[in-house]
Amino acid sequence: MKDKVKDWMKANEKYGVELLQKLIQCDSVQGNELKVQKLVEGELQQLNLTVDRFVPGEETISHPAFCANRTDFKESPNIVGVLKGSGGGRSLILNGHVDIVPPGNKEDWKANPYSGEVKDGRVYGRGATDMKGGNTSMLLALKCLKELGITLKGDIIFESVVEEESGGTGTLAAITRGYRADAALIPEPTKMKVFPKQQGSMWFRLKITGRSAHGGTRYEGVSALEKSVSVIQAIQSLEKERNEQITDPLYQNIPIPVPINIGKITGGDWPSSVPDQIVIEGRMGVIPGEAMEEAKLEMKRALESIEDPWLQENPVSLEWFGARWLPGEVEENHPLMMIIGDHFERITGKDVTIEASPWGTDGGLLTEEGDTPSIVFGPGETAVAHFANEYIEIDQMMLASELFVHIIIDWCGKAN
Amino acid sequence: MKDKVKDWMKANEKYGVELLQKLIQCDSVQGNELKVQKLVEGELQQLNLTVDRFVPGEETISHPAFCANRTDFKESPNIVGVLKGSGGGRSLILNGHVDIVPPGNKEDWKANPYSGEVKDGRVYGRGATDMKGGNTSMLLALKCLKELGITLKGDIIFESVVEEESGGTGTLAAITRGYRADAALIPEPTKMKVFPKQQGSMWFRLKITGRSAHGGTRYEGVSALEKSVSVIQAIQSLEKERNEQITDPLYQNIPIPVPINIGKITGGDWPSSVPDQIVIEGRMGVIPGEAMEEAKLEMKRALESIEDPWLQENPVSLEWFGARWLPGEVEENHPLMMIIGDHFERITGKDVTIEASPWGTDGGLLTEEGDTPSIVFGPGETAVAHFANEYIEIDQMMLASELFVHIIIDWCGKAN
Repeated sequence: MKDKVKDWMKANEKYGVELLQKLIQCDSVQGNELKVQKLVEGELQQLNLTVDRFVPGEETISHPAFCANRTDFKESPNIVGVLKGSGGGRSLILNGHVDIVPPGNKEDWKANPYSGEVKDGRVYGRGATDMKGGNTSMLLALKCLKELGITLKGDIIFESVVEEESGGTGTLAAITRGYRADAALIPEPTKMKVFPKQQGSMWFRLKITGRSAHGGTRYEGVSALEKSVSVIQAIQSLEKERNEQITDPLYQNIPIPVPINIGKITGGDWPSSVPDQIVIEGRMGVIPGEAMEEAKLEMKRALESIEDPWLQENPVSLEWFGARWLPGEVEENHPLMMIIGDHFERITGKDVTIEASPWGTDGGLLTEEGDTPSIVFGPGETAVAHFANEYIEIDQMMLASELFVHIIIDWCGKAN
Repeated sequence: MKDKVKDWMKANEKYGVELLQKLIQCDSVQGNELKVQKLVEGELQQLNLTVDRFVPGEETISHPAFCANRTDFKESPNIVGVLKGSGGGRSLILNGHVDIVPPGNKEDWKANPYSGEVKDGRVYGRGATDMKGGNTSMLLALKCLKELGITLKGDIIFESVVEEESGGTGTLAAITRGYRADAALIPEPTKMKVFPKQQGSMWFRLKITGRSAHGGTRYEGVSALEKSVSVIQAIQSLEKERNEQITDPLYQNIPIPVPINIGKITGGDWPSSVPDQIVIEGRMGVIPGEAMEEAKLEMKRALESIEDPWLQENPVSLEWFGARWLPGEVEENHPLMMIIGDHFERITGKDVTIEASPWGTDGGLLTEEGDTPSIVFGPGETAVAHFANEYIEIDQMMLASELFVHIIIDWCGKAN
């Protein structure tokens, strides 16, 4: 079986690369996911899965874990494909998101972010690693199982979801629609490390108020930008304090286990006026096991304790908005953890690395709200995700696919 | 004569306030000045001035001192009204701009910025002090001269110009059209201080480059915002150094004689991505007597000397754009300085204050490019200019107008 799968992968690498290219060529930023989902839908139909296309609706929007910057998902359907097993096996959700973050400054890209260019054994493009590469690995694994004539005992539920980058509404909608399994595998780009724990995260918006004045008499105003520098420094200190407290050995190799990232700043409307408002948007990591509300409180306290008379009189406004990912964890000795580790070591001859995820994924929702213990394990690396010139190594994508075939067979059971 | 003018002012205060309200009610931000200029044009025609309406054209755009963020001024005409004297007197340019800066955050305004609301002896609205109040003082002075039947020996050239807030193209166009005089008076809001010197200023745009990454592994990227904090601090140090060197006694009461103001910041496009570019726009003051190019060089050096390995490898991009005001100065014992001082002390009974202007005005252009020594002296104060809830004291506006009548008569000479 080991050789059969390896040979199949070799024979189908070109198919895999072309599939990934097609996925990348669909610009699927938030609100624009329909085209790529139709492509996935077609792929699942060819694999004889029973396909369910649906948009997040009222049940999802009214769910306590719902968190999004929109309520209209018309152009953003989920695609779920079910491959019924013959019975008596464990079921598995394969979950991957198709939404991507915006490409950033296009001048930084050597090629068009949506080209899917192949070069030096890599496929380039926005979403290559986060996570259309992982999605391709899963689709190839299912194709391999089909073409090798393998029938599974347990069900496979393939979830191609939207909105992971902005709060997990896609996965939440799959949960509210009733999809559950004995475990879930999410091939986010872990560089083939296994992540049983993942931090949560949530988005904040700060408004820092100053007082406008003519730039030539700027001492008559209060620069919201100068005050923002104090706010940025307070956030840096908070990040440092929070991370110094983390002793979990799964985080020991991660420079900043649970980062607070400032992603966006905007303010002022005239070069020679003192800016009277700055808006900052960012993402705060939530430690596995920490309550979201506790993390929010820490941010609030950090902002309130900035020693600046102006900011004491004119407090920074703090709002939690848009995206939110619950932290989540499964036991390190969960049976699926064991299976992943065993196959990794058997196929690659290397030791498996188990770490805590530096970012939130939909695994938090699946584990906490969907009763489905979730493990994150996939090809690609976040060093290139959300970056210009994002890419994935073709070898890694094919290796992941090969491993997925063995993991699926082992978890779900082989009927024939 | 002193009483006649005072009585006329008292009788015409209501007219003045209503005229100012009408000027404020025309939103005349850059590109939107046509409506207010038609109003001024009508006023000048009623005063029997010969009116010249023209837009800045090729001669202006190709002038070495031209500096603007646009070349199309179709909707932004200048209005110049000439009142020919009987001969044998000194000519005077009365120069005022009608363009205003944007109102900023409208929530900070108690009333609509374009209401022209009258309350507690003040007229409120964007442009009230900078400088539609000063313009009203001048128009009232001309109306007073006409209604008191006074004929002048020297010519009055009333220049209602555009684009002062963004580089002086309006005044430059009046210069290239040939308007010159023996002196100019610009009633910018000096709080009735007399400004024989004015600093120049120019706008800069900085681009700070980082490297994007996923916010959850933000240590894999380089935050352009964190680097921007160093840049902001370098600019603050440069401002401090430059100002410590200024010993001119005319600046002794000004907290920061020649400020560098950062007016605008924007960067990043996703809360959970590391921002890979920040753009900062600001205004650098130029010391009277300092060459613009020398000031530019100081900024360049300050940015280059930031001790940060990343910024050494990825230098901050520096661009000078949009607006620029030349510094300018006339002698403190210029005859018009004397006349202004004498009438101020005679009418108000207070000592006149002579200072250096904390901001650039079109006086730099008039003095340096238009061969017309210019003095800035007017009602209102920059403490409220470019601010929410900008206003002007009606008493001050009327006092300025009264003084202008006497100053004009004294400078141009009375023929009858």
